[in-house]
Amino acid sequence: MKQACVHSFPMTHPADVAALAAELAAGRIAARAIAGIIVKTEGNGLDNDWTRVMAWDALVALLRAHDTEPSVQRMSIIVSGGCEGVTTPHMVVFECRDVPAEHPPGRALAIGHAVSEPLLPEQIGTAAQVASTCLAVERAMQQAGLAREEVEYVQVKAPWLSEVHQQAALARGVRLKAADAHASKPWTRAACALGVALALGEATPAQASEAAINSDASVFTRRAAVTAGNDTLQNEVLVFGMSSGWAGSARVAQASLADLLDAGAIHDALARAGLPPRGAQLPAALQSQVRAVLFKGDPARSGLLRGERQLMWHDSDVHALRHLRAVMSGVIGAVTGTTRVFVSAGAEHQGPPGGGTFAVFVDAAAQA
Amino acid sequence: MKQACVHSFPMTHPADVAALAAELAAGRIAARAIAGIIVKTEGNGLDNDWTRVMAWDALVALLRAHDTEPSVQRMSIIVSGGCEGVTTPHMVVFECRDVPAEHPPGRALAIGHAVSEPLLPEQIGTAAQVASTCLAVERAMQQAGLAREEVEYVQVKAPWLSEVHQQAALARGVRLKAADAHASKPWTRAACALGVALALGEATPAQASEAAINSDASVFTRRAAVTAGNDTLQNEVLVFGMSSGWAGSARVAQASLADLLDAGAIHDALARAGLPPRGAQLPAALQSQVRAVLFKGDPARSGLLRGERQLMWHDSDVHALRHLRAVMSGVIGAVTGTTRVFVSAGAEHQGPPGGGTFAVFVDAAAQA
Amino acid sequence: MKQACVHSFPMTHPADVAALAAELAAGRIAARAIAGIIVKTEGNGLDNDWTRVMAWDALVALLRAHDTEPSVQRMSIIVSGGCEGVTTPHMVVFECRDVPAEHPPGRALAIGHAVSEPLLPEQIGTAAQVASTCLAVERAMQQAGLAREEVEYVQVKAPWLSEVHQQAALARGVRLKAADAHASKPWTRAACALGVALALGEATPAQASEAAINSDASVFTRRAAVTAGNDTLQNEVLVFGMSSGWAGSARVAQASLADLLDAGAIHDALARAGLPPRGAQLPAALQSQVRAVLFKGDPARSGLLRGERQLMWHDSDVHALRHLRAVMSGVIGAVTGTTRVFVSAGAEHQGPPGGGTFAVFVDAAAQA
Amino acid sequence: MKQACVHSFPMTHPADVAALAAELAAGRIAARAIAGIIVKTEGNGLDNDWTRVMAWDALVALLRAHDTEPSVQRMSIIVSGGCEGVTTPHMVVFECRDVPAEHPPGRALAIGHAVSEPLLPEQIGTAAQVASTCLAVERAMQQAGLAREEVEYVQVKAPWLSEVHQQAALARGVRLKAADAHASKPWTRAACALGVALALGEATPAQASEAAINSDASVFTRRAAVTAGNDTLQNEVLVFGMSSGWAGSARVAQASLADLLDAGAIHDALARAGLPPRGAQLPAALQSQVRAVLFKGDPARSGLLRGERQLMWHDSDVHALRHLRAVMSGVIGAVTGTTRVFVSAGAEHQGPPGGGTFAVFVDAAAQA
Repeated sequence: MKQACVHSFPMTHPADVAALAAELAAGRIAARAIAGIIVKTEGNGLDNDWTRVMAWDALVALLRAHDTEPSVQRMSIIVSGGCEGVTTPHMVVFECRDVPAEHPPGRALAIGHAVSEPLLPEQIGTAAQVASTCLAVERAMQQAGLAREEVEYVQVKAPWLSEVHQQAALARGVRLKAADAHASKPWTRAACALGVALALGEATPAQASEAAINSDASVFTRRAAVTAGNDTLQNEVLVFGMSSGWAGSARVAQASLADLLDAGAIHDALARAGLPPRGAQLPAALQSQVRAVLFKGDPARSGLLRGERQLMWHDSDVHALRHLRAVMSGVIGAVTGTTRVFVSAGAEHQGPPGGGTFAVFVDAAAQA
Repeated sequence: MKQACVHSFPMTHPADVAALAAELAAGRIAARAIAGIIVKTEGNGLDNDWTRVMAWDALVALLRAHDTEPSVQRMSIIVSGGCEGVTTPHMVVFECRDVPAEHPPGRALAIGHAVSEPLLPEQIGTAAQVASTCLAVERAMQQAGLAREEVEYVQVKAPWLSEVHQQAALARGVRLKAADAHASKPWTRAACALGVALALGEATPAQASEAAINSDASVFTRRAAVTAGNDTLQNEVLVFGMSSGWAGSARVAQASLADLLDAGAIHDALARAGLPPRGAQLPAALQSQVRAVLFKGDPARSGLLRGERQLMWHDSDVHALRHLRAVMSGVIGAVTGTTRVFVSAGAEHQGPPGGGTFAVFVDAAAQA
Repeated sequence: MKQACVHSFPMTHPADVAALAAELAAGRIAARAIAGIIVKTEGNGLDNDWTRVMAWDALVALLRAHDTEPSVQRMSIIVSGGCEGVTTPHMVVFECRDVPAEHPPGRALAIGHAVSEPLLPEQIGTAAQVASTCLAVERAMQQAGLAREEVEYVQVKAPWLSEVHQQAALARGVRLKAADAHASKPWTRAACALGVALALGEATPAQASEAAINSDASVFTRRAAVTAGNDTLQNEVLVFGMSSGWAGSARVAQASLADLLDAGAIHDALARAGLPPRGAQLPAALQSQVRAVLFKGDPARSGLLRGERQLMWHDSDVHALRHLRAVMSGVIGAVTGTTRVFVSAGAEHQGPPGGGTFAVFVDAAAQA
Repeated sequence: MKQACVHSFPMTHPADVAALAAELAAGRIAARAIAGIIVKTEGNGLDNDWTRVMAWDALVALLRAHDTEPSVQRMSIIVSGGCEGVTTPHMVVFECRDVPAEHPPGRALAIGHAVSEPLLPEQIGTAAQVASTCLAVERAMQQAGLAREEVEYVQVKAPWLSEVHQQAALARGVRLKAADAHASKPWTRAACALGVALALGEATPAQASEAAINSDASVFTRRAAVTAGNDTLQNEVLVFGMSSGWAGSARVAQASLADLLDAGAIHDALARAGLPPRGAQLPAALQSQVRAVLFKGDPARSGLLRGERQLMWHDSDVHALRHLRAVMSGVIGAVTGTTRVFVSAGAEHQGPPGGGTFAVFVDAAAQA
């Protein structure tokens, strides 16, 4: 039987993998059982953020030292920068252990991982990528033994069009959706998000059509976050849900935020994960049960929030997404009490526009 | 009999006083009844923020056009920059109207305003300023008819040592606490804060001594915010409390935050002001009753929040206080649902270190 | 007979017009003789730079106080932000005086000013704007009595598509080149620049065609700078040249820089203006003769300078144009010795790509 | 006989040591012959710049792969961030080869390297460090066979007070000059600079006294740059000069800039190094002979440059030193034509206040 464990480690510098290394060395985590790692590093989270490379290199070296090549077939590693506001640099490690069969009393966190076949560069941002992502999500659900309605959250690492792919496409004379890696990110994220929506039944094939990609904002998934950065042109998928077929005390619950101040949605997700806040914030005694919180969202393009003027898009000295991450560390921290928040922007078809998607992972057995 | 009214106006640009102008023109607000104006403008809130000057000049011109010289004897105008995160540029106007005597059923918002005699430059940041501020607070309480325990919040505009004062002191051969206006701010804020603590009985004279100024962090007021910027070397004081001697439906309640994520304290202040949140956030139907929220606080010097690493003080591209204002717009917005939040840093002896002081103004009669 | 005078005033804050006010009050400058004012203010020079508004409002108020409405028919006022590097905030005032007829020994600075008829919003960025600007330049040349080859520099203030124009166009059902004022800037600058190239014979009508606008980088003027910001949909033109029909000791000389480090071009322009540098820099004794230096240019889109990697376009914390202005204050300051440099970016069809256009104004009679 | 070679390699990312690796692999550079490496990486050059760590780690790994432990006894590695303006990320490698004895026709670049004994933490920023640095400079001169007047430039890597040293000092109950590593930098740089001034005869022992450290700005060296960062509490010294005892075609020449726009000084240094510029800039054909340019300087504390107002110190969004590096890449690039400029701030007692020190390394035999 499988048991999912969610580990959280603070980081004292961008290449700090010491805490995970200690767990691996002590045998408390098995490198080969790791299905995914999500890292929040302390750079600006924008174009020239090298802290992501530092974390990536350190993780790869650590895993190899434990005889585990972190290939996309084996696990997804997502490294994202930007610890604005009160955010603490940290990493979340998702582990799938084999445990003696038991008859668990209820449902527990289930994790599935899958990766699509490589796409062609010209398929990025098209219906082909939507379909390919949909299939990968279905395979990951199958692996985890999760039905559609049991899936709470899907984390996708989407392929982007790096220089290499640009050159290859040019040589073959095909047209791409975007002329560089940066410009390809909205396209690959959007196609992946629609693929998840399709797989989870949140959109019909007609709705999640090629024409809808980055065009019809009314079509979206409430249960996914997509990060661009895969160099192998494959869609990497981590599916999280609640299943009676998995053991252990870990849980996950999702919510979609209607706007950036939708604290009620975060509150509801905590309650569904078995941690009902009292008053404004989760009581301190329960906060240690929170293993991870993930948010994906964007400031509204209108420049308004609840009808009120917003300045994020008009600050030429501090990037809008740095504002976003700072403010969401406050909103999420206010409800959950934690500073280990993973906030990421670029939420095409992920949650309602101007809002976003949220997931909380808890472990009822965790000690402070 | 007096009735306090709290008006809130969003601003579409730094010199936008159109909404207040319309109210004055229509006779719905009397310029001469204004006791204070607090403005949050959209610059960086730091050294080279000229939006404050724009707002100030526009307000002074408007008031003069209504035959009202905005002298410190008459009113306090506080202009502060920095609308990071989801903050909406806005102004809050405190008006004290004469109304026919009535027997109000309970207590209502009471406002007192007082200004000290001018200090000597060398008294800024010393026991003399503590005493002078204490006296001004007592006079403002007396004016409002408020007992110590009825005072909820005190807003002080503190004098700083501008170039003119520096030169004058130099000519007289006296030593000042700081060599320029910027460096004088922590001193003047600290002395004023201790003066409030003394007046409100939060500190004994022995505690609020000269030696304690910017030295003993255990001495602080939980009920004041001090902003530096007065050029006349006078301490300007606005005292807010709840009194049975005032009419109307406006209310105020204060809280002190133990740290930046102390959403519970904000929750409690709302409840004390008659607006108990349900769940994480004040219900939408009640949000329009919130007229103003003020927060004063600083990131903890330790670089830790709830034991977790914080980066604000180490981001050389985005100033720590810009991070602070962004994150607090999220924390306060999460509980109150509003984006018109006045967040200001520089909280020497104002609230516990690493936390801050908070006040909410509500009007039960306000319509959305 | 006409005499052109070039005045330069440093500014101690964004609304500082005191130096010009003093000259006007003393009768040393006549408000009605002012043909143009170019201001460099101290904000970030980007989207949320309010210092431009402060300077503009102060100038308009000052001119009105001297019975001079600063309409586009009378003069061009160009306010641009961004004093990065060693740049000193300052303004340059171009005055055209009537002087007793004389037989000047040689040639002197001549200034012509003209403004086109208002365009329709849908004409911005099209051949119609190219033609309209060409006509205005020709009228300004005629006014100044300058032949094509005598023109050294043209400063254009180009109309942009403000909210008002966008709405008007929407109501009439016409399509515009850009969906907001910011996005319209490259279009209006490009069309105006091609209009100048046409008027000065630097491009044929076939070269300066509608198809070339922001498309054919090989077509450009070496003698113009275009700034966007006119709200009246008119092209405002200031033409500067050397004429035997004008009196006085003022001079102008232009150069086009092949790239951002083309100090040789600046050196040549100084020499042509009668101030040959010795060694690297203009000798200190001659520096006071420099009245104004204007530069318009952009970093190369390739991200390379002389084959070497450049980071400006990839710094997510400091905008590329802030880097540009800082570095050009160094390049220009190194050769001229002055910190009153007017550097502006957005150089579509203005100078060779990756380089720019430069003009220096000197007055041989100026005293330090 | 010794021959000094100066190699320059551009870097495509912060950990890019590929160019040096290729030279080492091909045997064109011997790892054991390297006396110093100076690197300019592409981060913000401030508190949270991790690109320095990336470069450092990559260099150390490369050198170890070539059986060369980069200890302070063997070589000095100086990594500094901040490629603002037109600066290209790059590294400069100083190599001292053994060559067959020859009778060189004139003088050539000579390099000496020395490191002091470890200081005690409480000696940092004191007369003891001045004396210790002086001795190390003298030893390095001796190693290179350079007389005082033959020394052109000294590059020092100064020890700072890291956390470890702070704790050790605390345990021993001694007082330090500064409470953290950042605050210790001005002290260690100042003491080292005075040590160089003493060794080179630019200051008498009475002038370079403990009392003068960061106090008497009139005492300074014109021939040194000091960078803080050594963790071993040793002063590392690289001395560069021109000697008839060394072989080869490499040269070095120094200049001190009176202020940030002192292009004439840069011009003179080039001329002294055998590359007289013609006009504003070194002719293109000669630019490839420039191997390295180093500048150390600070903006004037007065906020004035040549009497004109400067904003660097008052820009709260872009750090003053980022402005400085951008502008100096322009000034130095204007004269030399290169974008591989090493600009560093923190110039206590290094060059006249508001100016700085400059060195250029050329190789007459270098091909483009």
